[in-house]
Amino acid sequence: MPHASKEKEFQFDCKKLRLIVMDVDGVLTNGKLHYSNNNHGSREFDVKDGMGVKLLQSVGLEIAWISGGHGGFTEQRAVDLDVRHVFTKIKDKSTVLSSLQNQLDIDVSQTAYLGDDVNDLIVMPFVNLFFAPADAHPACLQQAHWVGLHDGGDGFVREIADHIISNFGVNPYQPFASLN
Amino acid sequence: MPHASKEKEFQFDCKKLRLIVMDVDGVLTNGKLHYSNNNHGSREFDVKDGMGVKLLQSVGLEIAWISGGHGGFTEQRAVDLDVRHVFTKIKDKSTVLSSLQNQLDIDVSQTAYLGDDVNDLIVMPFVNLFFAPADAHPACLQQAHWVGLHDGGDGFVREIADHIISNFGVNPYQPFASLN
Amino acid sequence: MPHASKEKEFQFDCKKLRLIVMDVDGVLTNGKLHYSNNNHGSREFDVKDGMGVKLLQSVGLEIAWISGGHGGFTEQRAVDLDVRHVFTKIKDKSTVLSSLQNQLDIDVSQTAYLGDDVNDLIVMPFVNLFFAPADAHPACLQQAHWVGLHDGGDGFVREIADHIISNFGVNPYQPFASLN
Amino acid sequence: MPHASKEKEFQFDCKKLRLIVMDVDGVLTNGKLHYSNNNHGSREFDVKDGMGVKLLQSVGLEIAWISGGHGGFTEQRAVDLDVRHVFTKIKDKSTVLSSLQNQLDIDVSQTAYLGDDVNDLIVMPFVNLFFAPADAHPACLQQAHWVGLHDGGDGFVREIADHIISNFGVNPYQPFASLN
Repeated sequence: MPHASKEKEFQFDCKKLRLIVMDVDGVLTNGKLHYSNNNHGSREFDVKDGMGVKLLQSVGLEIAWISGGHGGFTEQRAVDLDVRHVFTKIKDKSTVLSSLQNQLDIDVSQTAYLGDDVNDLIVMPFVNLFFAPADAHPACLQQAHWVGLHDGGDGFVREIADHIISNFGVNPYQPFASLN
Repeated sequence: MPHASKEKEFQFDCKKLRLIVMDVDGVLTNGKLHYSNNNHGSREFDVKDGMGVKLLQSVGLEIAWISGGHGGFTEQRAVDLDVRHVFTKIKDKSTVLSSLQNQLDIDVSQTAYLGDDVNDLIVMPFVNLFFAPADAHPACLQQAHWVGLHDGGDGFVREIADHIISNFGVNPYQPFASLN
Repeated sequence: MPHASKEKEFQFDCKKLRLIVMDVDGVLTNGKLHYSNNNHGSREFDVKDGMGVKLLQSVGLEIAWISGGHGGFTEQRAVDLDVRHVFTKIKDKSTVLSSLQNQLDIDVSQTAYLGDDVNDLIVMPFVNLFFAPADAHPACLQQAHWVGLHDGGDGFVREIADHIISNFGVNPYQPFASLN
Repeated sequence: MPHASKEKEFQFDCKKLRLIVMDVDGVLTNGKLHYSNNNHGSREFDVKDGMGVKLLQSVGLEIAWISGGHGGFTEQRAVDLDVRHVFTKIKDKSTVLSSLQNQLDIDVSQTAYLGDDVNDLIVMPFVNLFFAPADAHPACLQQAHWVGLHDGGDGFVREIADHIISNFGVNPYQPFASLN
């Protein structure tokens, strides 16, 4: 049971996190790509997950999105949420991640990753914590340090964000005026 | 159990309600924002929820929508349903709500709110009743006066509308010709 | 339990049916209206339900769609499935239905209706059988002669079509080349 | 129970498979056709299923898509995944399949098919294995050699692909850099 096994480590690690890296399709979305006129690969993002990204930024964390898929719509969502490190059409995610860590002077112990498929697992040696949504590929459910209660694109990013900001002393249940 | 705890109060309060305020993303929709060509943030509204808005109007209630998100598609849906008080890109929803109450000469005891996230909870001091959909953020599930059986964008607004019009003496199971 | 209570009557009635009338939003779709650029009210239809319409036509039944909502996309789907009797933006569905019955010389005992909301129930005096999808408004679940196992827009029309064609001696499990 | 009954045969047959044929609507998608401006029949494909297609190709299997529905968006998805044998608007799928088998010099024992409705079952004499998604039409659930745990358009293709590549000696849980 991933939920239980890393409970203490999870509590500890989050305080030193500086960089949260996210896959896009299946993590920030439900993995569906909408094909229509001149428009293949349009996607649905979740508004509560967007609030999760803003909450992570509010405690000073760097956010990066690394996607194997086509861009365009991903970049637009990133602009709307002020996410500055966005990489699309990436075949080897570990190379991009390692390069970003060097650029930002952030090490493995300060990095967490949210992913849902086998091409995300390649980053494992470069991250301290790997989070998977409830509907991730079985390989991720098996190898992740923590499995969320929510599916990708349906509250998973917010769920993890709430856990992380709690470790930074922010109450995720506190009413507040909108951040975006 | 929110369902049980405010049952009597709920019955009483609805008769004096004059203003029903709704968040949009996650309440009138399932919270998904569709990103495609020149079209980021398009949304899906539910036809039964639309009937709920019309039913609330049919007993003389004022309807207002207050959204933290981008507009455009929200305003178009409002036009189709004759909702006249629509506010988008709002950071502090309580200020807008308070100003609208002054304008309409409606007080806190006459106001109900439908919301699903922590940035909605800021309106709590300005409303008599706060309703949350079944898939609201845990903070709303905990602090709402009433939690619906339906998810946002999937019958929640209709469910609440049916409760409210029952208090006004209208049978929500009565067959009738369409309102819209 | 609607499933059990009308079982015999259902078996009997279907053989004399000549006209199957369907609501659109919530019956042929899941009731979601997609609002995007110049495009409010686009809809999703199900491919298995489309096959259900073709199967009903294959045993000689007339099909009519009567919608309270905006048209455009509904008419296009009707063209693709050769449905000739399509009415949109209808407030009083019973008047339209009655007029169509006169035009086609089909009486109440030969008419079945698929609907999901209170504005559909107004047709009850004009139909022999009223079918509701599993996610219909509670008023329809209560008053329908038969409640499907499937939700609107997700196999409900096919489920009813399979029942009806069985009564006409067609095996709905028979492999065959596509009809559309 | 289809899962159990063909277990051994499944293990054996997969090693000699050379051609995997897939229906599109309801198999590679959830069967929903989105109708909007000049755009009827746009579809949603799943990113994990796309990876499944790439994995099947990586062990040398030929992939073909045969659809009864309109094309356009299907062909675009095929281009993105390097699927070269794509047939749309097909009424009799068995004729197309038989012709393709001749062209590729592949026989019935080397062919598997993924389908979800009665117009797919017509191919049964031309395939060694017929796979159906969990939400297939009851006729397919009954007659398929194997029923997946996932619905069409939501991981079914990937699930079958993982089974098949396991038979070719590839571990589907192995982390790797993206294939597309």
